[in-house]
Amino acid sequence: MHLYSKPRLEVCLSPALLHLFEVKDVVVVIIDIFRATSTIAAALDNGASYVLPVSSVAECIELGTIIDNSVTAGERDGKIVEGLKHGNSPLEYPTSFIQNRPLILTTTNGTKLLHMVDGAAEIIAGSFLNLDAVCNYLLKIGKNVLLGCAAWKDRYNLEDTLFAGAVVNKIGHAFNINCDSARAADHLYETSVRGGFLGVLKDSSHYRRLASFGLEKDMEYCTTPNLHPIVPILKNGKLIVYE
Amino acid sequence: MHLYSKPRLEVCLSPALLHLFEVKDVVVVIIDIFRATSTIAAALDNGASYVLPVSSVAECIELGTIIDNSVTAGERDGKIVEGLKHGNSPLEYPTSFIQNRPLILTTTNGTKLLHMVDGAAEIIAGSFLNLDAVCNYLLKIGKNVLLGCAAWKDRYNLEDTLFAGAVVNKIGHAFNINCDSARAADHLYETSVRGGFLGVLKDSSHYRRLASFGLEKDMEYCTTPNLHPIVPILKNGKLIVYE
Repeated sequence: MHLYSKPRLEVCLSPALLHLFEVKDVVVVIIDIFRATSTIAAALDNGASYVLPVSSVAECIELGTIIDNSVTAGERDGKIVEGLKHGNSPLEYPTSFIQNRPLILTTTNGTKLLHMVDGAAEIIAGSFLNLDAVCNYLLKIGKNVLLGCAAWKDRYNLEDTLFAGAVVNKIGHAFNINCDSARAADHLYETSVRGGFLGVLKDSSHYRRLASFGLEKDMEYCTTPNLHPIVPILKNGKLIVYE
Repeated sequence: MHLYSKPRLEVCLSPALLHLFEVKDVVVVIIDIFRATSTIAAALDNGASYVLPVSSVAECIELGTIIDNSVTAGERDGKIVEGLKHGNSPLEYPTSFIQNRPLILTTTNGTKLLHMVDGAAEIIAGSFLNLDAVCNYLLKIGKNVLLGCAAWKDRYNLEDTLFAGAVVNKIGHAFNINCDSARAADHLYETSVRGGFLGVLKDSSHYRRLASFGLEKDMEYCTTPNLHPIVPILKNGKLIVYE
């Protein structure tokens, strides 16, 4: 067995821990299940020309006035921001609405993490909606991988870790894993085998917060595997479909 | 059901995340299973007059020359530090050796975290060796609780989280828990029901590192529940047995 010949796979549980990990020449998977990376997968699979992730609301509004036919969207604390037109629900972006339109997106956690990663080989967006597509991409590329959980204002969250665990469980055999976060994520994934992803996540901080806004349907959607089997990849600041 | 009347319980997975938690007037449980808090429980239960946790090796050496009959001990990267007499193994501190002697201890992670916590109501040390004693103490005190994992150089580790999970599982019913780290720790604990604590931890970074130094016996000891049923509590900078 030649462990050393396998690429490395690690899991970063919060942006506040990102400095502990090597990202240079690493494929970084940004994970923000509720709901940025789920929305990105849905919008791109439904035909958005690209998704432009931006950090600030002001930037989002300004770019919306410049980019033809664009859709501005964003949330802060789980609610649509004043001045933006749309929210962070994957259900808001059916083909009939988003096809051939750029989506300019700002969110609380996901887009922030995306802008923190410097020097990565590639940056892609992962969610249950494109779980297998992401796994297949990582196997095919064969580079070192960092699964980066967007978390909630730097706080550990269950849903991003559960997704990381699903990836570790499915393709960990092809990687050299010496990272307790990855092992813990895998253990967490095991607990979902009986009740499913949503079963585990119903008792989580983010589920409770979003449910209090009436967003249960969103979360059911976001935890359904492989509805949008594409890989969003960052190229020149824009997320596009990896071909 | 009056959730609001229960005290809060949270889990901090790494010192690098400590700033996200309120510690003022909170009972903080420092957790460094491999091996600072295990050694502290063993030494105190075996009769050490107190344990003085210090941050630096230089301070440890100097205090050792000042404090009568004291034992200086410390590790860096799992090995005894040059200039100190003893290491960080609970097995080094039987009654025949440590009774009525002060133990001056510096470690890689545990003592560091202990000095980071300011304004806590109380600071105690938790390990599997005093699991039930810690749980009973927390139930009796009835204040808000933060379980603080020492981690490994700020990196998440499995053993400290597993202990936090054991506490959540045993006494979580008496607390208001809205913290995904606590939920995840509890899920991790559930995976130990079949194979035991050591079973889960054999595939962890720290177990592998310490096993490569031949310290399997230490880890078997550190994962045995309730061998030292006392509560080490910090008073005036010293850890003593809570009476």
